[in-house]
Amino acid sequence: MDRKEFRDLASPTAAREALDSLSLEGGVDRVSLAEARGRVLLARLDAELDVPGFDRASLDGYALAARDTFGADEADPARLELVGEVHAGEEPDVALESGQAVEISTGAVMPEGADAMVAVERTDVDENGDVLVRTSVAPGDNVMFAGADVAAGERALGPGTRITPRDIGLLSALGIDEVPVRAPPKVGIVSTGDELVRPGNDVDSARGEIYDVNSYTIAAGVEDAGGEAVLYPHAGDDQDEMERVLREAANECDLVLSSGSTSASAVDVIYRVIEEQGELLLHGVSVKPGKPMLVGRLESSAYVGLPGYPVSAMMVFRTFVAPAIREAAGLPEPAAATVSGRLAREARSEEGRHLLLPVGLTNDGDGETLVYPVDKGSGATTSLAEADGVVEVDAETDYLEAGESVTVQLFSPDVRPPTMLGVGEDDPTLNRVLDRLENPRYLSVGSRPGLRRLREGVPDVAVVAGPLERELEATTLGEWEREWGLIAQAGNPNEIDELAALVDRDLRFVNRTTDSGLRSSLGAAIADLAEERGVERHDLVEAIDGFDLGLRAHESPARKVIAGEADAGLGLRETADRLDLGFVPVGSQSIRVLTNPDRIDKPGVRELESALETIDELRRRSSDD
Amino acid sequence: MDRKEFRDLASPTAAREALDSLSLEGGVDRVSLAEARGRVLLARLDAELDVPGFDRASLDGYALAARDTFGADEADPARLELVGEVHAGEEPDVALESGQAVEISTGAVMPEGADAMVAVERTDVDENGDVLVRTSVAPGDNVMFAGADVAAGERALGPGTRITPRDIGLLSALGIDEVPVRAPPKVGIVSTGDELVRPGNDVDSARGEIYDVNSYTIAAGVEDAGGEAVLYPHAGDDQDEMERVLREAANECDLVLSSGSTSASAVDVIYRVIEEQGELLLHGVSVKPGKPMLVGRLESSAYVGLPGYPVSAMMVFRTFVAPAIREAAGLPEPAAATVSGRLAREARSEEGRHLLLPVGLTNDGDGETLVYPVDKGSGATTSLAEADGVVEVDAETDYLEAGESVTVQLFSPDVRPPTMLGVGEDDPTLNRVLDRLENPRYLSVGSRPGLRRLREGVPDVAVVAGPLERELEATTLGEWEREWGLIAQAGNPNEIDELAALVDRDLRFVNRTTDSGLRSSLGAAIADLAEERGVERHDLVEAIDGFDLGLRAHESPARKVIAGEADAGLGLRETADRLDLGFVPVGSQSIRVLTNPDRIDKPGVRELESALETIDELRRRSSDD
Repeated sequence: MDRKEFRDLASPTAAREALDSLSLEGGVDRVSLAEARGRVLLARLDAELDVPGFDRASLDGYALAARDTFGADEADPARLELVGEVHAGEEPDVALESGQAVEISTGAVMPEGADAMVAVERTDVDENGDVLVRTSVAPGDNVMFAGADVAAGERALGPGTRITPRDIGLLSALGIDEVPVRAPPKVGIVSTGDELVRPGNDVDSARGEIYDVNSYTIAAGVEDAGGEAVLYPHAGDDQDEMERVLREAANECDLVLSSGSTSASAVDVIYRVIEEQGELLLHGVSVKPGKPMLVGRLESSAYVGLPGYPVSAMMVFRTFVAPAIREAAGLPEPAAATVSGRLAREARSEEGRHLLLPVGLTNDGDGETLVYPVDKGSGATTSLAEADGVVEVDAETDYLEAGESVTVQLFSPDVRPPTMLGVGEDDPTLNRVLDRLENPRYLSVGSRPGLRRLREGVPDVAVVAGPLERELEATTLGEWEREWGLIAQAGNPNEIDELAALVDRDLRFVNRTTDSGLRSSLGAAIADLAEERGVERHDLVEAIDGFDLGLRAHESPARKVIAGEADAGLGLRETADRLDLGFVPVGSQSIRVLTNPDRIDKPGVRELESALETIDELRRRSSDD
Repeated sequence: MDRKEFRDLASPTAAREALDSLSLEGGVDRVSLAEARGRVLLARLDAELDVPGFDRASLDGYALAARDTFGADEADPARLELVGEVHAGEEPDVALESGQAVEISTGAVMPEGADAMVAVERTDVDENGDVLVRTSVAPGDNVMFAGADVAAGERALGPGTRITPRDIGLLSALGIDEVPVRAPPKVGIVSTGDELVRPGNDVDSARGEIYDVNSYTIAAGVEDAGGEAVLYPHAGDDQDEMERVLREAANECDLVLSSGSTSASAVDVIYRVIEEQGELLLHGVSVKPGKPMLVGRLESSAYVGLPGYPVSAMMVFRTFVAPAIREAAGLPEPAAATVSGRLAREARSEEGRHLLLPVGLTNDGDGETLVYPVDKGSGATTSLAEADGVVEVDAETDYLEAGESVTVQLFSPDVRPPTMLGVGEDDPTLNRVLDRLENPRYLSVGSRPGLRRLREGVPDVAVVAGPLERELEATTLGEWEREWGLIAQAGNPNEIDELAALVDRDLRFVNRTTDSGLRSSLGAAIADLAEERGVERHDLVEAIDGFDLGLRAHESPARKVIAGEADAGLGLRETADRLDLGFVPVGSQSIRVLTNPDRIDKPGVRELESALETIDELRRRSSDD
């Protein structure tokens, strides 16, 4: 087996330095004001005119010479001759002489001879049409002089300004309708690997095909960091095609990211192309996940090879590549988004590798933050989707104790930890309840693991189906019944009529794992059947073809039936109805939503409790679907 | 004068309630995965397939039956017959029997008969081609079972999820390439007022025209809040046209915002249209700035009338409208972005109105945050561009003491207070120095006010031109000379040869304000001339036409000369050269950059000090321009 080995791994610091040595900067864009928000100004903008461009009335009232009002008050108003009016958007057609006033509206040009104005509220007009001014004003009162807001020649916005709506106000005032901004660095994304299929197409699981996760995920990460993502057509494992796509991307982009393939041949092509057409600066970095990272140059572009596994790819991207893109885009480091909390479970690192540990967050009953590792493996997309941030553990530390205080770097400042963390059985009614909550997180790990985790004290809630194995100090928030049985092919062509058919006939069955509450109920039903027949439970189980084939999710057996790989599967009536499959009822079981008594007052748990009161309505609705 | 009065002002709470009673929600968009980042999911997405879709090898190595390795170790490896290989993206063409192994690569389909795999690193291949397994593995080791990441039927993403790159990873894994998301609320922006001109066109200042600041600013605010902004053509003050545009916007949008006009006739049209075609819910709110706010319905759309002044418009928008748009867009309230600090100057409110006070931030020498009010008036766009956030003062409080601790709501979580706050003289060389700093703020208030503010202790730095009036305990960070004199029309057609020409000939002159260091130097030069001639300084000043016309900014006199409104203006040689105008040298003056000794170690001040060392280079460059 010919494999590239990653020996002499670089330290995270060396990897950052390698990336810093590359230039990712894009060029210049000229954008209109309507598109300028959030962009980064490339050059200083100076005011080319005064704002306002004229001495401007700040109120509705009368323009006058301040000295004509000196000494005036309520008892002894100054009387001025009204000689005209000026409205906003008009050129004054009148000039004032001593003892005169002009009616003026907000925003209008102050007429010649006027050096102040008085608000209409402080005046009266007498029977002759003269203006009585009941206060004295000083020169400049209620007038905004030309250039008082921004003066011609003033430095308006500096280079590197990230344009806010307020800056757009300033640019508008200056009449500027187009600004030079940094072009976002153009980042080409090349995915390789024969097994990858772009979303929207069909995958052939028998051939080991999977959807290409990295391309769109990394593209979204690139745009989050202020880059422009360009997705190149999927190159498969065809070496010539891969080389062609890599070179095309390198010619068109400031940075090329390759990702996806774990096959040795793909890695070989990338090596060869980088070494022939560019330069390899770094090969392998001692972080976990993420070891197989490449950094180099290709043609005139920077190049980073990301690991194939989605979690590794995103972690390497986030830790090393995103900061370089942000820097090139001229964006500041995002506001510190960290949360401190208590580690809910111990975590182990590996000898000498810097650990990037995805974690989820929740609050315990006292409002203290609990931090729990999310470890479904580097190959699992849910390891990130179900996490809120990362705990970094340096290479020297190989063990974090449960209860230790840790700092979590949130994935972004926008991350909102879930209001309620639930674990346990998967159930269609439960899913509709969850839809009513603000920001819940639910991990469908099955009834048994759910109960165990509730006892361990991390989640707020466990959802359990079927009989409880042992008593638990928990409060029931809600409960409902669900009908379960055998899911058969559409129209039940095998005419399966009862559970015993699995034992007595030659039918291929698909079960659920022992974690599932459905499996517990099935076990109980088989025990009843054994007692009825006066045989051992074990004998019946042995007679069922596929009893040991336990699938994790509640719909998976039904999917096997649809695919023709089984004649019957364990499942819910709701699932059979929704997928238009046959259904043989066997029993009904209760689903209970349990919470630890010390979480009962947590707002998210209260919200769940209220939502559970609508279950009857939700179930009625679902039967109308 | 016929004016709408805003009596019985609503409280801020009542204004929020009026807005909450309106529905701004947009419809449904279906977007591709590439466009889904940041959008808000409208409906729950369940997994329609298992991920992975097959039992998948997690490493490069050998697929085998775990029981065949039981008891194996380094000393006594298990020997298995190698019967084939499977690569990623291939359907296995081999099934295992007891004692057999299959070479398998990461991501490949586990062949029938295998229930575990061993990493290649724990194996050898002997001379017969048999595989020696040097460890025992348990069933399931190094295999990711079908559905272990996401199982068919599982709740993948809940409604209301704001889609992150990590969620895009999950959607990709499920093969979903299009998602239903909330359409952003469509917000029509109608600006009115004869005096408003859209940026990019010319303004006629003599007619009192100004650029339309609110349209683009509010549009950017709408997009910041997650809405889609639609700018309608500027309607001027033509009543029929205004009505037509308002109705069109109401028909096409979820919310119509009008803004801009302060003219009574425009307000009248809006009233009439809202009252005839819709409903007026609220008229005037007791906040400052922002009193004249309207809330109502128009056709099937919500309607908010914003005040005309940019600062008032943005404050009302930010306080009342942006939260409603965010809510309709399904976006969460932005992460709390508040900063506490000490108020640097007292602030006064007005009887019974809730005050929204724009403030800037800086740190004093001890790193403590100073909060200073930015009050250039509601009509000034720089009141917001030069501020970092808002201090809210409720209607019951009418006075905040200097030194009081206040909480500042930053304009957004992205706001970075300036690293260095400078005040004082405007100068082209200084502007180039500022361009070299990370995030400076400079307020060109003139030399005298700059010195005063430095003494008061808010800014870090004051820049002063000309002779210092009195000694100050300040450290000089940098100093340079600049040449000043009279700026004449291009080619100096009036053949102005010296300062005395202003006194002796009939020339129209434009001066700078007494705040300016240039004005001080001019005063000194005239005093010298008076002494030379043996006359009073006052007599010379009286003989200069326009000596009292003091403009605020260093380029404004030059602009008056260009406009033909003056024959000569006070200014710098640099300005004359840049604008291709004539220049009559009178003298040179020094510019000094001063800092309070207790700020000398502030990083932004140190950065400025370093940048000032490059002045010679910057000035050389500028003369090459």
